[in-house]
Amino acid sequence: MNIFHKLPAALPEEVSEILAETSRVRIERIVSHGQATPEGEWYDQGWDEWVLVLAGSAGLLLEGEQEARVLNPGDYLMIPAHCRHRVAWTGLQGQTVWLAVHISE
Amino acid sequence: MNIFHKLPAALPEEVSEILAETSRVRIERIVSHGQATPEGEWYDQGWDEWVLVLAGSAGLLLEGEQEARVLNPGDYLMIPAHCRHRVAWTGLQGQTVWLAVHISE
Repeated sequence: MNIFHKLPAALPEEVSEILAETSRVRIERIVSHGQATPEGEWYDQGWDEWVLVLAGSAGLLLEGEQEARVLNPGDYLMIPAHCRHRVAWTGLQGQTVWLAVHISE
Repeated sequence: MNIFHKLPAALPEEVSEILAETSRVRIERIVSHGQATPEGEWYDQGWDEWVLVLAGSAGLLLEGEQEARVLNPGDYLMIPAHCRHRVAWTGLQGQTVWLAVHISE
């Protein structure tokens, strides 16, 4: 299996796909093309999430920070449980491919 | 942090580095350059391991299979606990960068 295979062509919404799943861990590919978290909305998850940008670019805003962190290919970040965050932007030049590892302890 | 930063220059041995760790999950970057598991040796782990090749190429042999699976950038694979496996080869043209997610349930 290849993480870059079958990238969706048109992307009215973000597309996520589960690549692997165990009882405690879910590994997903997320493909974005310009999407962002709706204004004023935040993710607040009860589990840790480790993300790695594989292609494209994105801005990830963590609550309490002034500016979104810019993530380019190879950039990664652990988002601890209950660290509120939002995707401020994703690139419009091609697709942004994220790897997300959701970890329930 | 970027997963491609500070790739070791000379590689007499494989180099692995922990990118993130929780009580149940360890996420590592492994950099290889021609290394393989010593002849006749196998990995036999008591936990699941999900691997993704980010750069370079490798051959991964699972016990019971005739030929090593060839992994190129973007190729991924879940290696279930106690699935014996060995790295048959890694590319000599540049470094092979693996992402490994070790999952203890």
